[in-house]
This record gives sequence, structure tokens and C-alpha cells, in this order.
Amino acid sequence: MSMAELSPEHFLWRMEGDVAVIKLNRPERKNPLTFDSYAELRDTFRALAYADDVKAVVFASNGGNFCSGGDVHEIIAPLVGRDMKELLAFTRMTGDLVKAMLHCGKPVISAVDGVCVGAGAIIAMSSDIRFATPRASTAFLFTRVGLAGCDMGACAILPRIIGQGRAADLLYSGRSMSAEEGHHWGFYNRLVEPDALENEAIAYATRLAKGPTFAHGITKTQLNQEWSMSLDQAIEAEAQAQAICMQTRDFERAYHAFVAKQRPEFEGD
Amino acid sequence: MSMAELSPEHFLWRMEGDVAVIKLNRPERKNPLTFDSYAELRDTFRALAYADDVKAVVFASNGGNFCSGGDVHEIIAPLVGRDMKELLAFTRMTGDLVKAMLHCGKPVISAVDGVCVGAGAIIAMSSDIRFATPRASTAFLFTRVGLAGCDMGACAILPRIIGQGRAADLLYSGRSMSAEEGHHWGFYNRLVEPDALENEAIAYATRLAKGPTFAHGITKTQLNQEWSMSLDQAIEAEAQAQAICMQTRDFERAYHAFVAKQRPEFEGD
Amino acid sequence: MSMAELSPEHFLWRMEGDVAVIKLNRPERKNPLTFDSYAELRDTFRALAYADDVKAVVFASNGGNFCSGGDVHEIIAPLVGRDMKELLAFTRMTGDLVKAMLHCGKPVISAVDGVCVGAGAIIAMSSDIRFATPRASTAFLFTRVGLAGCDMGACAILPRIIGQGRAADLLYSGRSMSAEEGHHWGFYNRLVEPDALENEAIAYATRLAKGPTFAHGITKTQLNQEWSMSLDQAIEAEAQAQAICMQTRDFERAYHAFVAKQRPEFEGD
Repeated sequence: MSMAELSPEHFLWRMEGDVAVIKLNRPERKNPLTFDSYAELRDTFRALAYADDVKAVVFASNGGNFCSGGDVHEIIAPLVGRDMKELLAFTRMTGDLVKAMLHCGKPVISAVDGVCVGAGAIIAMSSDIRFATPRASTAFLFTRVGLAGCDMGACAILPRIIGQGRAADLLYSGRSMSAEEGHHWGFYNRLVEPDALENEAIAYATRLAKGPTFAHGITKTQLNQEWSMSLDQAIEAEAQAQAICMQTRDFERAYHAFVAKQRPEFEGD
Repeated sequence: MSMAELSPEHFLWRMEGDVAVIKLNRPERKNPLTFDSYAELRDTFRALAYADDVKAVVFASNGGNFCSGGDVHEIIAPLVGRDMKELLAFTRMTGDLVKAMLHCGKPVISAVDGVCVGAGAIIAMSSDIRFATPRASTAFLFTRVGLAGCDMGACAILPRIIGQGRAADLLYSGRSMSAEEGHHWGFYNRLVEPDALENEAIAYATRLAKGPTFAHGITKTQLNQEWSMSLDQAIEAEAQAQAICMQTRDFERAYHAFVAKQRPEFEGD
Repeated sequence: MSMAELSPEHFLWRMEGDVAVIKLNRPERKNPLTFDSYAELRDTFRALAYADDVKAVVFASNGGNFCSGGDVHEIIAPLVGRDMKELLAFTRMTGDLVKAMLHCGKPVISAVDGVCVGAGAIIAMSSDIRFATPRASTAFLFTRVGLAGCDMGACAILPRIIGQGRAADLLYSGRSMSAEEGHHWGFYNRLVEPDALENEAIAYATRLAKGPTFAHGITKTQLNQEWSMSLDQAIEAEAQAQAICMQTRDFERAYHAFVAKQRPEFEGD
């Protein structure tokens, strides 16, 4: 399946080589999510699992901000007063975006500038790698709208990134995590100045895209699914997964390049 | 059920608004635990799950120390020579205190000054949020009395807070973790000077108590039970849990306050 | 079973008191692993589970380096072109080394100097405690040979030590983690100058070897198997495990020494 030519309605999409760059596109409102952009993002990440011409994804900022979360007027307002069937349909739809990101088979690098809150913080959290600018401000602020911290997987995924105590503080209080805290705690892999942020994230993604991308997809699968295995089960799962990768041509390519003292040219098969 | 008027025999209990403040009360011996205080604490945290007039709990220090753990004369001595049935009854009773803290439905903030060792370190570990003074000294010292590090859930909970390697060091060696290490590693959320410690913990708890406390209870449940789910299962569990919270009046209150440009007044229902 | 007199063919083995010190022994090539050394290490760690005269293990560096991983000519070359049955036999054999380390019942302390890459990084990761020199360079570089990051349990164990985000960065990129990063992230418990490294690791191991070693074995078991339990299950498992330890003589010894104001002499039973 080809996705390079995608023309989504509710967010920006462009290719930089084999790397897809996604941006929400309402910068005047700090890029809120709406029902439509949630659904289209979910469908896009689902389709990515079958796309061969996209090797990695950068989820970038726009106009100095990453994402302001679910729009109060367009999302919160219609939810107030809904019945349980409708509410569950909504929370499952938002959770499906995270599931789609986890299962898309490609590394996702978030490049976070400015505001990164609510569902925006969840998108960053659900990425594989996160870069941020020193002015990035990240908040899981569900509690401030009267809700629980358990939104879209936050009580599962955030503690696995930054530990249970720091996650509890952020999820109970809804407070902002500074970029410095986020870097110190392992939420952000790297701090980058605003001017360089997007290019540096694309450069990182491009290096991965030039690597053994079939194997990267396996890495992503295992990183996400081994949390619920015993260590012995995980070691057996990796024995099987790595044996699969040892039958790829990329493994042969790497060996022959090594013997020839050259850099391997990986092709993702 | 009302608990504000509780008069426990084996520890101090007072209300600061909707926040219960617990202190062990043998400061001359750095607040050891005894069979009686274990059992009464367990019963109190179990009852808290059904109490409506306590919204959060601060477990505070007394006389410059948090807790010196199980008293050697009152706990260790009687255990030596017991048969297996009696020993298991004891270890289950202490584990039941941790279970009761995890299932009490209210955020627990530990405010740790001075000595925090053995079962005292476990109480801090089993809290949701931990503040400490720079002079706090925390040790999981079970190994020093000839026992394993796996006491009251330590081999499960401590690595989820500070990571497997640091937890292994503390649990095998029984050494003290300095306050600075604890803060750097994410065990302590904040370092506070001794004079300010209790008030700052109460202030934090009070902010949570004025928040959507029904939702906080859900946050606590999910933070603790999603460790043993797959990420996909956790995302579905959160879809259900958050849909429940979207039918609370606190969710409506937050929305209407937002529209009116006011601060929401949450009531916990 | 006695192991102090072991004379392995493919690595060095010596006793320092009750502590076994293991070193790979091809320092001129930075200590690569071969099929033979993998298998002999696996069998040695399996046997350790039944050995009474080894109380702890130090996996040390040799000639300024820890381990350069699977030898390209001796391991990678023969794997290229193998069929699936043979590949799985290999990946299971390497995974069995990690399982054997996790199940050997003794604390393993890695002392990492210089190069620590590929399967070498896995050996460090699979240890309980890790010391390193400031010049240690650690890389999970499987991706560079066209493979996935999920090798020998890395996608399960590394995130549990340093968190999901940092592990993803190392496993996708294959980049080196500096000693300073490794220390800051909790991968390395301590940084030590090269001249002091081995002695300091042996001193740490010796302190554990003089402790309640039966209980240490239980600590190791629980630290590794409680990741796949619910917190409640883990608390019950610890109640049982600690009750067992309370029937050891080491528990009595500790108590009697405390009463006599002496240091306990533990004997591991």
C-alpha cells in the first residue's frame, strides 16, 4: 500500500524522503484535536501498518505548539450529557488512536514545542521517541476537567516511561511537566532549540528509515508487548522474533557490507 | 461512612479539612510499628475505601522521624521460632496493610523526615506521592535481619518507581538511600525543609481533595492495576473507566465553569 | 554441588572467597563471544543454581574491555543462510544464557570497562548490579547488523531498568550509551575508576556473600518474577517467600546478634 500521496483533510502530511511528517493545523488555537482529526489520525496510523513507502513518522509542532488536546467546545461540550453507550464509543475511539500508533509498525518521533497537553500529551507519550524544546510544557490535565488520569492508556504507558511516582504526581495534579523535568525523567529523549527541532527529529527518523525497517517494526512490537509477559516468556518471544529477522536480506546485507568494510545499504526486507 | 471522628488507639489521626493526617506516635523510638499498629492501620485504610468524608490522606512524620519499621523486641522477637502457619499469618497481615493502602480509593501522600526504614520505607513506597526532607534516610533493610528484600510488595513496587537496577541495589544491600538520591531517582516527588514538610504535604493533599475525588479514586485504581495488563487491555480498561467519569457531575461542573470562565467547584460525585 | 574448582575452557574463572569472578579471555579482540563461550557460560550459570560454595558472581572486564558481543566471523558468518530451525536453535541458546543468569540464585555484579556491546551489553543488562568506569561504552547494536532490538530479552529487561523511552532510543538507534548517561539513567549503579573497578565489584559481592545468601536468592527470584504479577499477587507471593525466610537460621542469627549488640554472622541457611 502506498501512503506517500496521502491528502488528509484534518491535518498536514508531507513526505521527507521515506519519513512522513504529520502536523495538526490549527496553530491559531494551538492545534486542538476534534472528532474529525482524532478519527482521521486513527485511520492513518492503522493504514500505516500496511504501507511500504513510509518508513518512519515524525509528529511535529506547528506555529510554536504541539497540541492543545481535545477542544473544549468541539469535544467536551458535546460529551456532557451523553449516555454511556455514546461516551464509551468516544473513549474507545480516542484509545484506538493510541492503539493504532502502537501497532503501526513504524517508529514515531514526536517533536514537541510549546503546548503539549491533554490528548496532545498522550500523542507524545504514545510515540517511540520524543524530542522537545526548552519551552515545551506538557500536562496530562484530565483531572482539571473533572476526569481521571486514566485517559487513552496514560496510567499504563506513562509509568513505564518515567516511573510510577512521577506519573502519579502528573496524573493526580494535572500539573505541567517542564521540558527540563521531562528530559531528566526520560520522557524527552533530547532537548532541541525551536529552530532546529523539526529538522533534528526528521534527521533521527531518516537514520531509522535508512536502517533495517522490517526489524525496526519487530522492535516496536516487542517493546510494546513484552510488558505483559514474564521475563522468560519475553526471552522466548525474542528468540522467535530475532530468528525471523535473521532470515531477512538486511541481515545478509549487513554481514556482506561488514566483510567488505562498507556501510550496509538496508532495504527493509 | 464517616471517618473524620476516628480515634485510633495506636497512631494519631486528625483532619485538616477533608484531609486525614496520620502519624505514628512513639517519637522517642522513631515511631516503630507493632502488631497492634499494623493491624489498626490496615483496618483504617480498609475502612477508608468506604468513607466519604476523607478525600485524601497524609502519612506524616513525628518528632523528626517517619518510621523505624517493625520493632525488634515487639515484632522480630516473637517471630523467631514461630511455625510456618503463624509466620504466614504475620507476613500476610503486613502485606494486607499495603493492599489496603493501594485499594483505599484516596491519594496517600507520605511526608518523610528522618528515619524511614523497613516497614516504614514500605509505607512510603506504597503511597501515591512522597515528599521528603533533605535529611530523610530511607532503607529497605530486611536483608540486615537475615531476610529477603521481598517484603510487603517491595520487589514489585519499588522497581516500578525507581527501576530494576536501583531497586536491586537497595534490596540486596539494605543500604540507605539519601534524600537526594531518592529525589533524583523519582522515589521522592519533592524535597522540602523539615519546618515546611507537613504543611506542604497537606497543601498538596488539599488541592487533590478539592479536585474531582471520585475520578482520583479511579486514577489510583488504574495506576495500580494496569501494570499487569497488556497495553491494549489497559487502553480498553481506561476507555471504560474514563467513560464512567464522564457521567459524573464533576465533569459537567468543570465544563460549565470553563464556559463561565470560573474555577470549577468539584464535589466528588 | 561444588563449583569453586571449575576450570572452564572458554573463559576465566577464579574464586575470591565465596565470590566467583568470570572474565572473557580474548582481550586482544575485546572479548567477543563465540558459540562455545555462550554455551559454556549458559551451562555454568545453570549449574550455579545448585552450587553451595559460590555465593555471588562478578562478571569482570579484561584488558580494558568488557565484551564486544558475538564475533562477526565466528557467529554472524555461520548464521547467514541458515534455515529457521537452526536460527531458532541459536537465538534460544543465547536467550538461555540470560535465563540461566536470571535463575542462577546468586547476585551477579557486572564490572564494565571499555567496550560493552551487543551480547556484552545483554550480559551487563541481565546482571543484578552494574558498575562501570567513566570510559565504558555500552551499545545494543543489533540494529546495525540488520536485526531487531529484541535480542536475548532486551525489549523486556532494558525498559524495566531505564524506562521505555530511553530503551527505545538505544534499541532503535543502536547508539552508544555513555557511562554518565548509564549512571544517570539507573543502568549503572556506580561509576568507578578503571584501577578500582574489579576490586570494588568484588567488595560489593563479598558483602552480599557474607549476608543471608539464601534470602538473597529469594530476593533475586522475586525481583525477576513479580514483573508479570498483579500487585496483589506480588504481595501474596512475598508474604509466602518472606515467611520461608523467617524459618531460616540466618533470621535467628540476626535477631540474637542484635540482642547481643553484635554483628550477625550469616551462613546462608
